[in-house]
Amino acid sequence: MNEQILLAERPKGMPTEQTFTFEKVDMPSINEGEVLVKTLYLSVDPYMRGRMNDTKSYVPPFQLNEVISGGIVGKVVESKADSFQEGEIVTGYLEWKRYSKASAKHLQKVDPNLAPISTALGVLGMPGLTAYFGLLDIGQPKEGETVVVSGAAGAVGTIVGQIAKIKGARVVGIAGSQEKIDYLKNELGFDAVINYKEDDVKQAVKDACPNGVDVYFDNVGGEISDAVTSQLNKFARIPLCGQIALYNLEKADIGPRVQRQLLINSALMKGFIVGDYAEQFPEGIKQLGEWVQQGRIKYSENIVEGFENVPSAFLGLFKGENLGKQLVKVADQ
Amino acid sequence: MNEQILLAERPKGMPTEQTFTFEKVDMPSINEGEVLVKTLYLSVDPYMRGRMNDTKSYVPPFQLNEVISGGIVGKVVESKADSFQEGEIVTGYLEWKRYSKASAKHLQKVDPNLAPISTALGVLGMPGLTAYFGLLDIGQPKEGETVVVSGAAGAVGTIVGQIAKIKGARVVGIAGSQEKIDYLKNELGFDAVINYKEDDVKQAVKDACPNGVDVYFDNVGGEISDAVTSQLNKFARIPLCGQIALYNLEKADIGPRVQRQLLINSALMKGFIVGDYAEQFPEGIKQLGEWVQQGRIKYSENIVEGFENVPSAFLGLFKGENLGKQLVKVADQ
Repeated sequence: MNEQILLAERPKGMPTEQTFTFEKVDMPSINEGEVLVKTLYLSVDPYMRGRMNDTKSYVPPFQLNEVISGGIVGKVVESKADSFQEGEIVTGYLEWKRYSKASAKHLQKVDPNLAPISTALGVLGMPGLTAYFGLLDIGQPKEGETVVVSGAAGAVGTIVGQIAKIKGARVVGIAGSQEKIDYLKNELGFDAVINYKEDDVKQAVKDACPNGVDVYFDNVGGEISDAVTSQLNKFARIPLCGQIALYNLEKADIGPRVQRQLLINSALMKGFIVGDYAEQFPEGIKQLGEWVQQGRIKYSENIVEGFENVPSAFLGLFKGENLGKQLVKVADQ
Repeated sequence: MNEQILLAERPKGMPTEQTFTFEKVDMPSINEGEVLVKTLYLSVDPYMRGRMNDTKSYVPPFQLNEVISGGIVGKVVESKADSFQEGEIVTGYLEWKRYSKASAKHLQKVDPNLAPISTALGVLGMPGLTAYFGLLDIGQPKEGETVVVSGAAGAVGTIVGQIAKIKGARVVGIAGSQEKIDYLKNELGFDAVINYKEDDVKQAVKDACPNGVDVYFDNVGGEISDAVTSQLNKFARIPLCGQIALYNLEKADIGPRVQRQLLINSALMKGFIVGDYAEQFPEGIKQLGEWVQQGRIKYSENIVEGFENVPSAFLGLFKGENLGKQLVKVADQ
């Protein structure tokens, strides 16, 4: 039997288990040029919260009572496309189903000999590419500069910090638990990590960045980012990647306007989504793959087992539960 | 006799006549390599308000009970430097005095045959170069795009709008009086101008920019800028030039954080000061000079007569009194 997950309601504030409905459905039948994919790993990502609102964002909203979609790694179980064979591992942007059909042109092959296949949703997929292009194209860290990254223990933040270290920067993370702090410092080589739940963040940024902040990779927004942007250096760069602090906010996001800080420091702030760099994905995946194989980039995955646990894995993103990439393992190969 | 203007107090909020003190002093005597300059025109600029506070900004604060300084056009009345002759017209960053001495290396010559000498403080000086580099390097307007400029009738805004027209953009200004609106539309060819004192700015931006905003050249900050940034297009660019709305603000600048708008539009915001482009000044002055001579850029000057009226000319900047570049004519050649 097949099964899928629908958006049952548009959440006000924090989503709950009631945001989702499970539904049993028939197995899809495929046409010429299509492929039937068995879902193996399913990605839950903070940006999906934005799509649950019925407002303009960088991707269109999910529709009520329709199937939610996102990044999937799966196995081809039937193919009517010349370019895919049964048994091959693929990734793509598919619906949250145990079995999906997809047009061949919307799938990419995953090489299981290069790295574990789940990395196609993490370090060698959307989060890794987000870190790579946001940091290198917008942040442009130089040797000896100070790079601060918020959401440092997440799928994007862990990669940002390690690429910044490769580029010779001093790296300061912001995270929310002692376990994450220990991991970032001891395993990934971050120079300092601030605990935003316990520290006075502004003072902690001052202490951790005695030479000021040259690059701030912003995954969170809100008051944490206000604290960092008060410590910018001349010509600082701020890639705006996410604003997780806002995703569940029910009111307007009011705070100190950042413009003065940008003005007095001739600083740059730029929003982006990974799709802005789609033409350069092959270059990014190649470089990230090399760094992973050389052991210069480590990655961490937080894997929940079972399709039935997709909602709780998603909700955990907003409770700061995940260290590294949050995935759901739906089935064995 | 010589005379100078000191900073008498650090203003809280709006400066007043009491912010300034006049003082009679001796004529300076010059040493080898120095030049004695008679002040002819003196520039008053909004950014100077920031220097009256004792806080970090992009230029160091003025000191209490010390002479204020700024852009000057003057005549060499005595020279002990080989590079300058008596009678030549020069410009530089000098003290607010009727007669100043200056090191030759801090002065540039002004060619009185190229354009009226006062333009060295306007279209062919700091405000013109601010418009030129901020718009072209950060804003990068393309043919058919929509460029919005606030403070549109000021020294910088009038030039921004005209350069944007030269580049083939649709140009929308924001200004504060019917006289200014008529000037911008009828004399400078702006496509639309919003009256921020009378219109609902957000609605007016929507109406004036049916295809959204591609470039927002921000001279003012505050609520006017909030209204514009709510209408950005994908990949919009925002040169942050000034925040005149803030200069006299006594409390923190609180409002909707702009980060979400930048994120969902992959938009760029960058602060700058004209000095960031110092190495390219000759290129900018040459291009602006050509456009002025071709009649493609018109400029407007608001000239107050008399050294004694420097404070009132400065205060007028914050009352929206000036159309174009605000100058004080201190003496005839």
